[in-house]
Amino acid sequence: MAKIYNPATQTALDIEQARRRAKLNVIATREYFYGSQEEWEKRHRVVEIVSNDSVLTGNRSRRHFTSRKEDFESALSTQCRLNELGEQHGWSDKEASIAASVCGEGMAMNLHAVAFEPVVLSQGSPELLNEFGHLIRNRGILGCYLQTELGHGTNVQRIETTATYLPVSDEFEIHSPTLTSTKWWIGGLGKTATHGVVQARLILPDAKDMGPHLFLVQLRSLEDHTTMPDLKLGDIGPKTMGAIGGLDNGFARFDHYRIPRSRMLSKFAQVTKEGKYVRPPHAKISYGGMLYIRSTMVSSAGHVLAKAVTIALRYCTVRRQGNRNAGGLEEQVINYPTVHQRLLPVLSRAYVFTLLGRTILKSFNAMSSRLDQGDASLLSDMHAMTSGLKVLVSTMSVQDIETCRRSMGGHGYSAFAGVGKLYAEHLPSATYEGDNFVLDQQVVRATLKSYKEVLSRKSFDNSELSPFSSYLRLLQSGTESSSIEFRSIELWHDWKTLILVLEWRAALLVEARANSSSEIYSDQRVSKAVSDAFVASQIGEMISNLSLQRSDQLIISNLLTLYLLCTVESALVDLLSLGILNGKSSGVSKVTDATAGIRLAFSNVCRELLPEAIALSDAFGFSDWELDSALGVYDGRAYDALWAKAQTEPLNATEVADGYKQFIKPILERGQKLSAKETKAKL
Amino acid sequence: MAKIYNPATQTALDIEQARRRAKLNVIATREYFYGSQEEWEKRHRVVEIVSNDSVLTGNRSRRHFTSRKEDFESALSTQCRLNELGEQHGWSDKEASIAASVCGEGMAMNLHAVAFEPVVLSQGSPELLNEFGHLIRNRGILGCYLQTELGHGTNVQRIETTATYLPVSDEFEIHSPTLTSTKWWIGGLGKTATHGVVQARLILPDAKDMGPHLFLVQLRSLEDHTTMPDLKLGDIGPKTMGAIGGLDNGFARFDHYRIPRSRMLSKFAQVTKEGKYVRPPHAKISYGGMLYIRSTMVSSAGHVLAKAVTIALRYCTVRRQGNRNAGGLEEQVINYPTVHQRLLPVLSRAYVFTLLGRTILKSFNAMSSRLDQGDASLLSDMHAMTSGLKVLVSTMSVQDIETCRRSMGGHGYSAFAGVGKLYAEHLPSATYEGDNFVLDQQVVRATLKSYKEVLSRKSFDNSELSPFSSYLRLLQSGTESSSIEFRSIELWHDWKTLILVLEWRAALLVEARANSSSEIYSDQRVSKAVSDAFVASQIGEMISNLSLQRSDQLIISNLLTLYLLCTVESALVDLLSLGILNGKSSGVSKVTDATAGIRLAFSNVCRELLPEAIALSDAFGFSDWELDSALGVYDGRAYDALWAKAQTEPLNATEVADGYKQFIKPILERGQKLSAKETKAKL
Repeated sequence: MAKIYNPATQTALDIEQARRRAKLNVIATREYFYGSQEEWEKRHRVVEIVSNDSVLTGNRSRRHFTSRKEDFESALSTQCRLNELGEQHGWSDKEASIAASVCGEGMAMNLHAVAFEPVVLSQGSPELLNEFGHLIRNRGILGCYLQTELGHGTNVQRIETTATYLPVSDEFEIHSPTLTSTKWWIGGLGKTATHGVVQARLILPDAKDMGPHLFLVQLRSLEDHTTMPDLKLGDIGPKTMGAIGGLDNGFARFDHYRIPRSRMLSKFAQVTKEGKYVRPPHAKISYGGMLYIRSTMVSSAGHVLAKAVTIALRYCTVRRQGNRNAGGLEEQVINYPTVHQRLLPVLSRAYVFTLLGRTILKSFNAMSSRLDQGDASLLSDMHAMTSGLKVLVSTMSVQDIETCRRSMGGHGYSAFAGVGKLYAEHLPSATYEGDNFVLDQQVVRATLKSYKEVLSRKSFDNSELSPFSSYLRLLQSGTESSSIEFRSIELWHDWKTLILVLEWRAALLVEARANSSSEIYSDQRVSKAVSDAFVASQIGEMISNLSLQRSDQLIISNLLTLYLLCTVESALVDLLSLGILNGKSSGVSKVTDATAGIRLAFSNVCRELLPEAIALSDAFGFSDWELDSALGVYDGRAYDALWAKAQTEPLNATEVADGYKQFIKPILERGQKLSAKETKAKL
Repeated sequence: MAKIYNPATQTALDIEQARRRAKLNVIATREYFYGSQEEWEKRHRVVEIVSNDSVLTGNRSRRHFTSRKEDFESALSTQCRLNELGEQHGWSDKEASIAASVCGEGMAMNLHAVAFEPVVLSQGSPELLNEFGHLIRNRGILGCYLQTELGHGTNVQRIETTATYLPVSDEFEIHSPTLTSTKWWIGGLGKTATHGVVQARLILPDAKDMGPHLFLVQLRSLEDHTTMPDLKLGDIGPKTMGAIGGLDNGFARFDHYRIPRSRMLSKFAQVTKEGKYVRPPHAKISYGGMLYIRSTMVSSAGHVLAKAVTIALRYCTVRRQGNRNAGGLEEQVINYPTVHQRLLPVLSRAYVFTLLGRTILKSFNAMSSRLDQGDASLLSDMHAMTSGLKVLVSTMSVQDIETCRRSMGGHGYSAFAGVGKLYAEHLPSATYEGDNFVLDQQVVRATLKSYKEVLSRKSFDNSELSPFSSYLRLLQSGTESSSIEFRSIELWHDWKTLILVLEWRAALLVEARANSSSEIYSDQRVSKAVSDAFVASQIGEMISNLSLQRSDQLIISNLLTLYLLCTVESALVDLLSLGILNGKSSGVSKVTDATAGIRLAFSNVCRELLPEAIALSDAFGFSDWELDSALGVYDGRAYDALWAKAQTEPLNATEVADGYKQFIKPILERGQKLSAKETKAKL
């Protein structure tokens, strides 16, 4: 006889047992994940304040049931409350940004902090900063960044908005000459911002077009928030899937709108009173802002994956379905290979992207401070690297969030599961900040340039290669990929082998592309191989530098190895068609052995990590408030939580639906009349 | 000097030129796509009525801006109006279903038609049909189908709800013994249905558990729609991504709820007055309903892809971005290989799934009428086939819709693009009607059974193999895959080669799986290969039986060949690791040639089809009303449409946001005060 299944106690028991079974030191791993104990504690303090606030909690509890307009008003209320709390607790910028991220809403104030403030502060003239610096830092004005137009996104060079210098009045005239030049998608512009930085083509008095430059403009009155004259502003309407409803992505049309000359962001390029152009020290010096945003996208992808996979792992641990196990209960779904072999790779990427993101940000800061001194030598490599990583990380993470959602079966489609919202709001990362397909081209262009440089030298010193091109060292004559023997399964557990294989793939693919057509070796394929090789080499650094206790170290390095194994598995077509696994002339059995070896190693590593999965996700340290998921509750009682949430659905406030008399009753009455008629006719 | 770009005229010109350039006969192709001129005209008449109706149009125009509760009420209004129109125009069931599909909302009435009506009509006893048949057909009662529970989805065999027969009163007692036995996700149950068919474990008076059976129960009063006693009903809350808000997916708990014995659906299995069980002729005879729904999923996936790709192709034809072409205008984005090589495969799948869906439905009907006569011989093959196709089609189509959305860059994320809604509402097809990962197991189980049967015979007649297993003929001794010479590119344009390659892959993979572990040859991999081989053979039939004019025939067969090429490309890992492309002992250059050949053929076929893309999507015959997309308007004026839509956003109704005084002003004032203080301190 099967044991009686009491979900209220069994689910809690299941997750408790999963926690007990794990060997991982959750506290030590949490500090490793956040970088230090201090970072974690800072975060934790802010989370406590936010999640105990009644205004913020009230807004959050209503968010599944609101219209777009209500979403926006709720986000305003949240921003105002965060602003109050920040003053009250003396939050630093970092703490304020944690608080906003914990609330998890797209909000105008975030765009002020990420896209407006850094641009003005890093590219404004001293005079401009003197006038606006304090106001910007204290949110005495609220800003947005107006770049994208209705007709131009990724191709910034072709934007149509103009800023014509008028020497007579010492002013610029900002103008939108066509419908397609309308600024569009600008976060915070729709209904909130008072000011903005506009990308516009600078036109000199001699009609010469100097291409895109930046200008600070006032958008709304500081008295009553009405729109400034010669402007048309508005919200562009809802985003798809009900996402980011709190953010007022807006449009702006400029009708010969005038601003003083001093409002040009002229730390680098300038226009003199007479209308003469003063060139910046480096053509692409103003690209820093975009690279910064792309750099932050690596760890924010890690963060969202951490949330999604925490929810999925917890639910799949308490969900039981299918075969009965020895104890008479149905199996926990996490124990099926089809489930944990999907989720553990996501867990590994949550770790890798977070750790990698910290390294990238450090590299960005190094480049940035050199740039401040007019040294642009690191810029082009940083551009290629952040472009490649942006594509890799956004593509993988969007896919991974959906993998988490789908692993939860039907209940994953409930709004209360919480994962669909993460997906919908992370989704645009594939198309914003440079469309992924366009960025791939740029990565390949930079890659081929590096390749040719390497080829042109007789011999080269490996240390001359940037980290992003280090795989090219393999193309030195004398190095042979087929010297590796890939038949044994043990080899596929070795992270050094995995990294080497991925570097070989990048090297041979770049070589093949340089000598062949893009139809066979597409930009996507080459760019992915190059980025994969870079991430792999970074993982090598991570594993080498792990400083945890021995048992934790084993678990984490296994997790990082899993990342590499998944990447190798996804690279199989390249590895096979480039002859990396099979040597120059070996037969099919060798190929079959190699692919089988990779798959067996993958399934072994997954099995080894399985008992640590819940602990590894507990180490992210999310509270139930942050996750806002009925399926991912810490105590495992997913069914109770789902039931409780359903009771809050506004449709359940009345026993009979509001539309019954007007809409349902007429259908039933019509049908009953017809039936009566038919029955009569039959008699 | 670049030509001045006037989007209002240029976009219209671009799409007009695309239409002029195409050779395809749109009208003939449209009839081919819909099966006949009559089918198309029937559809067209219904679309005209629906799209000219002011109630339905009003509901549609508000749908981007509503809350969940408003979504539900709007869907009620739509259903009531459709019911009126149906009576007024004397719509057949088919026409009513077209009308509902044109409105594109999840609605309780659809579930009545798809999941309730067919089950009762095909499995109810004559007495039950006598009482309820007319009422069901005329919507005098509204029904739903209660299968899924909070704790059990795909594994129907383990549901917990009980129906205990009580001989004393000649009644069944329906009961929900646990929280997890609560019926959950039931479409139409939340606030609409008056009746439902319940899956419950039949318990006989001797306490014997006969497993799941079906029972008709009344849920709400026909007088005032209040909930019947001993029941708790409600809506389970919003779906994720704001999807299907019009549908009241609901829950139900039964507290010893009694119904007469006659309410059991007892056409096959029965319980006598004395409590004796009468067995059905075949254990799985009641599975027909689920197979029917899976069968319809093939063509409905084709339908949704047709919509998504129409929108994407039109927008990518009028969107210009990047390099300037000879005429001084930026390039139409559809001309970039990264764009059309993503969209044309989707176009091919929209055609294939629609055409295939019709064939499958015919097979289902053939099986169904045999089943009616107690002959279940076709059931297991139909089960494997519909399971495999359900997985294939839902996986591909969800992915393809997102490909369409992403091809449109940033604007694809606007709700007004219309594709995100298609995605969100098609998404659950991957987890409902059997989770895809579970269905894969069932396909593999059936496949291995067929394989063993084939092996056990010394020789076999190919005609004994069902269409779903026909690839197994290749395993007869004497057939050699390596006898095909794959080096020439021309060969990869030949659909017969492509089909054969896919059949070889299925055969060798099934053989390998039978002799090896599921760790290396996973269910997903094997199931995909088997389904791909089946679809490929069906495409062979389609191409052979094309009866169009020569020029249309060439285009359509090219399009169907593209489907095959994409499938072969996605199968490369299997083809390479099984030695199909490289023979038993040939070297890497042969492999490189074969993969290069496939990729070149793919890019050639795409280039050939590109001039026909708009015409091929026009042949779907969608009106602007149906597509409801600013980017996919027929006349190409996407920017004008997007601008016009943005003006309807409710946030734009006032110049100053409603929350300004309460939320924005305090932030600004606080910041201005702080800034003034800081500036003073500095002086």
